Amino acid sequence: MGENIGAAARVMHNFGLNDLRLVAPRDGWPNQKATETARNAQQIITDARVYPELAPALTGVQYLLAATARPRDMVKRMLSPRQALKELAERSASGQACGLMFGPERSGLANEDLILADTLVSIPVNPEYPSLNLAQSVAILCYEWRMATEGNLPSPPALEPPASKDEISGFFSHLTQILDEVDFFKVPEKRERMLHNIHNLFTRAEMNSQDVRTLRGILTALGRK
Amino acid sequence: MGENIGAAARVMHNFGLNDLRLVAPRDGWPNQKATETARNAQQIITDARVYPELAPALTGVQYLLAATARPRDMVKRMLSPRQALKELAERSASGQACGLMFGPERSGLANEDLILADTLVSIPVNPEYPSLNLAQSVAILCYEWRMATEGNLPSPPALEPPASKDEISGFFSHLTQILDEVDFFKVPEKRERMLHNIHNLFTRAEMNSQDVRTLRGILTALGRK
Repeated sequence: MGENIGAAARVMHNFGLNDLRLVAPRDGWPNQKATETARNAQQIITDARVYPELAPALTGVQYLLAATARPRDMVKRMLSPRQALKELAERSASGQACGLMFGPERSGLANEDLILADTLVSIPVNPEYPSLNLAQSVAILCYEWRMATEGNLPSPPALEPPASKDEISGFFSHLTQILDEVDFFKVPEKRERMLHNIHNLFTRAEMNSQDVRTLRGILTALGRK
Repeated sequence: MGENIGAAARVMHNFGLNDLRLVAPRDGWPNQKATETARNAQQIITDARVYPELAPALTGVQYLLAATARPRDMVKRMLSPRQALKELAERSASGQACGLMFGPERSGLANEDLILADTLVSIPVNPEYPSLNLAQSVAILCYEWRMATEGNLPSPPALEPPASKDEISGFFSHLTQILDEVDFFKVPEKRERMLHNIHNLFTRAEMNSQDVRTLRGILTALGRK
């Protein structure tokens, strides 16, 4: 289906992959639906190579993973996406030309296609409804490829450094003073326990210096009333 | 977009999730496109709850993850999908009601929505084209949820146990005998080395007993000629 091919191209671009090879696309090629669905991944669609059958599409590929939902009656190693893409990334880093192979959404890959793969990869789905959309299978494997190559962490946001303990203590003393002024602690024997809880609450908030200044500004404003 | 809602429902069903809450869907509700795209996930569409704004949709949710592509100017913990869904799965296992929040595909979640989340989660995409399809973001986070809850391995295929070393040696002796009969090794000093390589090749093939029987059958048939 053109839509599936276009969506697969788009998600390849999302994860930084670009070599798309198509085997006997059902609705011919080029395909208007594929072009529309690909959005910003037009270059991948333009550069896609089309083959009448699978074998020539694998020219140059040294290690091939095949995505399949159903374990078949076939003696072939099967890994989870995490394990499989970690291995593929290691092979790729050592210079091997690696490929990921997907079948048509409804039927999946045939046994004669799976035979050509080195390893099968199966996405752990709900057994009651294992039929994943094709482009979503592509998304999950491309995601695992990127996790295996780019590391686990997205670029962290520029977090403000946390406030120092003396800034927090200063705020807390200020707060305690104001609470005492307004006679907040009506039952004296509960005062200490309540103060501990309040202090704890503000500690958990992981405030930065600006947060502390803001809260002290509020206290100052309230204290004036 | 109805298509995105339907595709998200389908992938939720693929990974065994079912509680869908919608906030002010653009094209109203119910939505024909959502129903069509959801395929076998009709129950999730039927049971979906619709809210005019975000706050009431979060009723009962104790821990909220928000998917966002862009680190914002916001002091909030941000994790990779793997880390975030591992933590969510742990909280869920301890009885906390957990939610995953996604924004509209084009604009993403607004800062005022992100404030309500406990943790931000960012999918590591190609910075040149970070715009993931909404349902594919849902797919990747649902996949990581299932990996965190169901373990790393898909149910393994029923692999035949490997052939014993004596079965393989028996085959290899048979092969060597036939190769000698047909005078395969024309250069005697290369014989041993070639035999080693051939033996190695069949060792790497990780044959099972049936494979060995098949190969021996072939040798027997060829030996008769």
